[in-house]
Amino acid sequence: MSTAPASLDEIRRIAKEWRAGDTGAGAEARARQATLTKPPGSLGRLEQIAEWLSVWQGRHPPRLDRPRVVVFAGNHGVAARGVSAYPATVTKQMVANFIAGGAAVNQLCKAADADLRVYEMSLDEPTADFTLEPAMSDGECARAIAYGMMAVEPGLDLLCLGEMGIANTTSAAALCLALFGGKASDWTGPGTGVLGPALAAKIAAVEAGVARHRGAMTDPFETLRHVGGRELAAIVGAVIAARLARTPVLLDGFASTAAAAVLFAADKVALDHCLVAHLSAEPGHRRLLSAIGQAPLLDLGMRLGEASGAALAIPLLKAAVACHAGMATFAEAGVSGKSG
Amino acid sequence: MSTAPASLDEIRRIAKEWRAGDTGAGAEARARQATLTKPPGSLGRLEQIAEWLSVWQGRHPPRLDRPRVVVFAGNHGVAARGVSAYPATVTKQMVANFIAGGAAVNQLCKAADADLRVYEMSLDEPTADFTLEPAMSDGECARAIAYGMMAVEPGLDLLCLGEMGIANTTSAAALCLALFGGKASDWTGPGTGVLGPALAAKIAAVEAGVARHRGAMTDPFETLRHVGGRELAAIVGAVIAARLARTPVLLDGFASTAAAAVLFAADKVALDHCLVAHLSAEPGHRRLLSAIGQAPLLDLGMRLGEASGAALAIPLLKAAVACHAGMATFAEAGVSGKSG
Repeated sequence: MSTAPASLDEIRRIAKEWRAGDTGAGAEARARQATLTKPPGSLGRLEQIAEWLSVWQGRHPPRLDRPRVVVFAGNHGVAARGVSAYPATVTKQMVANFIAGGAAVNQLCKAADADLRVYEMSLDEPTADFTLEPAMSDGECARAIAYGMMAVEPGLDLLCLGEMGIANTTSAAALCLALFGGKASDWTGPGTGVLGPALAAKIAAVEAGVARHRGAMTDPFETLRHVGGRELAAIVGAVIAARLARTPVLLDGFASTAAAAVLFAADKVALDHCLVAHLSAEPGHRRLLSAIGQAPLLDLGMRLGEASGAALAIPLLKAAVACHAGMATFAEAGVSGKSG
Repeated sequence: MSTAPASLDEIRRIAKEWRAGDTGAGAEARARQATLTKPPGSLGRLEQIAEWLSVWQGRHPPRLDRPRVVVFAGNHGVAARGVSAYPATVTKQMVANFIAGGAAVNQLCKAADADLRVYEMSLDEPTADFTLEPAMSDGECARAIAYGMMAVEPGLDLLCLGEMGIANTTSAAALCLALFGGKASDWTGPGTGVLGPALAAKIAAVEAGVARHRGAMTDPFETLRHVGGRELAAIVGAVIAARLARTPVLLDGFASTAAAAVLFAADKVALDHCLVAHLSAEPGHRRLLSAIGQAPLLDLGMRLGEASGAALAIPLLKAAVACHAGMATFAEAGVSGKSG
């Protein structure tokens, strides 16, 4: 992009043509898999991952030397409704913790030998409370998406997308309700740990926000603008830009997947270059994954956000690449093939 | 042990007193978890893993600098029944492949920075065909268990146990049927990829073997001797020795879990220092995990054996340790705690 998109119409134009994967590289990966010293299919999803990385990196063999973990942080007006177990000031405090290296995602990135970047998005100016007015103006939403696009550098082998934002599971639940229907309680869970009356208030906020803006949410980008948030819009932008940059994407948990689902709702092929790293303990995530047809790589009862699940899954992808590239073939190893 | 046990009675004596975990170290782990900059419980199983490692390593904080992956290889007389998709010569060929560094487990160990040891167990002398006679004599079985015990060096932070042995899912299925009941077809699956008449022959072999020895399988160790195999007996020994050495264990897939289940059948606390790395695609594994009360860490449709699932799960345990040891506390980071 020569200049950053400044309106949702420009974003809509960019998000209309989804770059295809490299099926030739995928076929090369499949052909090599069949020669490696193991019963066919016995490495399960590791085999599919090697092929998927080939298709979306557009090369064979795939590589995983430069994984990047990105955390977008934003604040939400709806936090004032008491929908989180933590005060809104925690968003900024946690960004400082990321920068100081003290958060879970820091340790997970170090363990996975992945590069971490944290993007703070106007934390002192939360989006508007979506139970009262649209969370963002057209320009604000477009700029947040464009900001996410800019976070995608050329040459990355994998982009892990996560978020930090007190009250953003409320926003994510509202996105899901508006995009996929159902009841507010289907999509709204404890988040950081709200229960009882606070959870009821959270469900009510989701319901009220979607009801208020129903008529105005004429397409998924309008939905994002009305009930989303800046860090969620940035994830939308990063998913778009990663497709253009031939960078496969690993989505983190409930909020990250809900953001990416905006693109799925606009075009079913939009997330073909994305995998979901883990099934969050946030109850709406399972329903969301089913709505977008994704099977998570991990299911460890995590619900932290901040790209922690995505960073944790990087070693699985590295392992898939290592097996694919490093294993001997039956011929090389002098191992007998399948009988009959 | 001063001298290696030479009879199953000596093994029975050793396996009678199960060393308790260090609940003090576990309590220290729990106390620290509560102070780290994340909502309580939000790292899900990573938090439980850090505590479990503390309990079974007997120290806090737990460490994971020295993981060891062990593959025991054995040959099975029952292979002559045509129960595998591969000829029995493949066991030895795959051991050569492990030594040359060409197998999946080699790449996975390298990716996880884990040490790999392969133990070849009399490959030129397969155990007896258990459909006709006991697989092993008392002395053979005891020596195989003792051999597995010897593989556990002091000072390891984690022991991953896997196996290689053409026809050993047949032996594992027979173990499960004899230990936990049900039908032969409940426990017998495609293994390396047998289908149709070959799968029917495999189920028939499992049924015949268990029926023939039913009266003689008077305890789990007799079951192991009659329908098990050397590499499975070695896993039994390694699980026992790891408990004595304060080394937590990660079991691989169906065959490894079936071997360890011999100890569970003898004493329900025997596998408290073990986790199961992954749910194998071999259908009996799910039933087996339910029988021994274990929840696998990964579910990626793998069914290769050779400790591949266990090696793949090492980075998850390393990540748990890294988060536990490296994260800042709320006080250190100046992050506000939970409201109310």
